[in-house]
Amino acid sequence: MSKKKVVVSLGHESLGYTTLEQMDAVKVTAKALADLVEADYQLTITHSNGPQVSMIHKAMTELRRVYIDYTPAPMCVCSAMSQGYVGYDIQNALRSELLGRGIYKPVSTILTQVTVDPYDEAFYEPTKRIGRYMSKEDAEVEINKGNYVQEIPGKGYRRVVAAPKPIDIVEIETIRTLVNADQVVIACGGGGIPVIEQNHVLKGASAVIEKDAIAGKLAVDLQTEELIILTNVDYVCKHFGKPDQTPLPTLTVAEAKELMAQGEFEAGTMLPKIEAAIFYLEKVPSGKVLITSMGCVKQALKGAAGTVITA
Amino acid sequence: MSKKKVVVSLGHESLGYTTLEQMDAVKVTAKALADLVEADYQLTITHSNGPQVSMIHKAMTELRRVYIDYTPAPMCVCSAMSQGYVGYDIQNALRSELLGRGIYKPVSTILTQVTVDPYDEAFYEPTKRIGRYMSKEDAEVEINKGNYVQEIPGKGYRRVVAAPKPIDIVEIETIRTLVNADQVVIACGGGGIPVIEQNHVLKGASAVIEKDAIAGKLAVDLQTEELIILTNVDYVCKHFGKPDQTPLPTLTVAEAKELMAQGEFEAGTMLPKIEAAIFYLEKVPSGKVLITSMGCVKQALKGAAGTVITA
Repeated sequence: MSKKKVVVSLGHESLGYTTLEQMDAVKVTAKALADLVEADYQLTITHSNGPQVSMIHKAMTELRRVYIDYTPAPMCVCSAMSQGYVGYDIQNALRSELLGRGIYKPVSTILTQVTVDPYDEAFYEPTKRIGRYMSKEDAEVEINKGNYVQEIPGKGYRRVVAAPKPIDIVEIETIRTLVNADQVVIACGGGGIPVIEQNHVLKGASAVIEKDAIAGKLAVDLQTEELIILTNVDYVCKHFGKPDQTPLPTLTVAEAKELMAQGEFEAGTMLPKIEAAIFYLEKVPSGKVLITSMGCVKQALKGAAGTVITA
Repeated sequence: MSKKKVVVSLGHESLGYTTLEQMDAVKVTAKALADLVEADYQLTITHSNGPQVSMIHKAMTELRRVYIDYTPAPMCVCSAMSQGYVGYDIQNALRSELLGRGIYKPVSTILTQVTVDPYDEAFYEPTKRIGRYMSKEDAEVEINKGNYVQEIPGKGYRRVVAAPKPIDIVEIETIRTLVNADQVVIACGGGGIPVIEQNHVLKGASAVIEKDAIAGKLAVDLQTEELIILTNVDYVCKHFGKPDQTPLPTLTVAEAKELMAQGEFEAGTMLPKIEAAIFYLEKVPSGKVLITSMGCVKQALKGAAGTVITA
C-alpha cells in the first residue's frame, strides 16, 4: 500500500513564543506528527513564524543600536533565520519522537523562498498580524516607524504586514525529490521567504506569506491526498465565539464558500485556512482537508474529531 | 560522461561580516561556484559561519537586555539561524548567477546537525576563533562571562570555542538524495550544528565544528571525486608569511604530514584545511584536494593555480 501524502500546516500554538517555550512546544507537536507518520502518512510540514521572525527582527534591531557597524537585517533575512531556528527544533523533536517509537526516517528542513507579485493588492492593505500584543505606546512607536498596527479590542495592538498570495515555491523541485524519497520535509517555514523576481534575481519582499496559503499551494504542487491544518480550535465553527457557536464536522467547498460570504470566518485566523482549503480542493478535487487542534489529531484520524472539508 | 562530485568549502572571505557585506560577497562567490558547475562539477557546498553566528549571538543577547521575557538563545540555536541566513544568500546568489548563464539547476540549503563526542578533548582546550577582533576591554568582558579569548599579536583579541571532531552528519541521507538527483546542495553550514546524542535526543553543544573538518567528512560520506577548499590564499605555502615563503603547487599526503610535523601550518587557519585533506584522501585515495582562493578557481581548473593534494 502506498503512503498517503499530506501537507501539515502548524500554527503558533505548535511553537510557542520564546526559545524555551518552543523547545517544549515542539515535543508536543512532534507527538501529533509522529502519530501521522505511524498512520502511514508521508509528511511535508510547514509552520507559522510570526512570533519567531518578530523576535529575530527585534534582536537584529537592538544589535544595531549597540554595535553601529552592523548593517540592517531586512525582514527576508530575519525570515531565513527563523526558518533555520524553527526547522531545527521541529526536525530534532520529530526525529527523537520517531526514534523513540522505533521508526527511522530522515527529517530535514529546506530553506524555502516563495515568489509574490509586487502588484499584489495585499501590499496596499496589510492584514497579517505578527508578533506579540503591544501597548498603545509601543504601537505608536511602530506607527512612527512607518509600520502598520491593528487594535484588537480588549487585547491590545499587533503589528500587521502585507500577506501577498504565493505564486511559486522556488525550491519545489528539492522538496519534491525528498518527498518522493519518502523523507519527512519541513519546508516553506513562515509561509516561505517572500521574494519578488526581477530578471534572474529574487529580491526579498517586506511581507509575510500566510502559512495556510502556502500549505494549500504546497499540497497542490505535490498533489497530496490530504491537507491537515492544525490550529487552536478542535473544529471549524459557525457563529464562532458566540453563544450559539456550532462545530462543523464536515463541510463541502460550496458550503464553506457560503459561510465565507456570510462573514463567518475571521480574517487573519480562520479565513485563510478556509481559503487554503478551497484553493487546494478546487485544484485537487479528490483531496481532503482536515482542520483541527493538535490534541485532536489522533481522534480525527478515526473520524471522531475535527472538521473535514471535501470538494 | 558523468559529473564529478565535489565538496566545496567556503571561508569567511566568501561571506563578509555584515548583512550588506554578505549580500555583495556572495555575488563574487557565486561566480566561482558557477564556474565549477559550468566545468561539470556536481556541487555540495559548505561554509564558515564564525562572524555570522557571532553577530546573531550578540543580537540575541541584546534582545534579552531590552525585552526581559525572552529566554536565552544557546549557541546551537544561533547556529541554526546562521545556516538559514547564510544559506539563503548563497542559494539565491548562485541561482541567479546560474540562470544568468542559462543554467537551470535547483539549489537548496539543508539545515544540518552533526554529532560530536562529549569527551572530545577539544572541549578542554578551545582553539576555534570566532567573531571579530576585540579590544582588550571587550576581551575581559568575555573572560568574565566564562568564555575563552585568545590574543592575536598586533591584531587584537578573538573569542575561541571548542572545535570537536565531527562524528556523524545527522541529515546525510537527505543530502545524498539531493546530490544523487544532481541538485546543488548547501549543507553543514558553519560546520553543522554540533549536537551530542543522548539516547534518541540530540542536545546542542556549545562548540563550533571546523568547517574544513566537516567538508572532509562530507566528501568521504558522499565519496566525491574532489574536495575544494576556498580560502584567502592562492596556494598552500611553506614558510608562510616569512621572507622565504614558497607556494606549493602539489603535495602528497606524506609531504603534507611532514610539513605539519614541522609546524608549518597555523592552527585555526591552514592546519584544519590540511588535516581535512589528509582525512579525506586517506579514506578516498583516488580523490583530489584543491586549496586555493576564490579568484584563482578558474585558473586552478586549468591546473594553473592552487595547491593540489593527492594521496
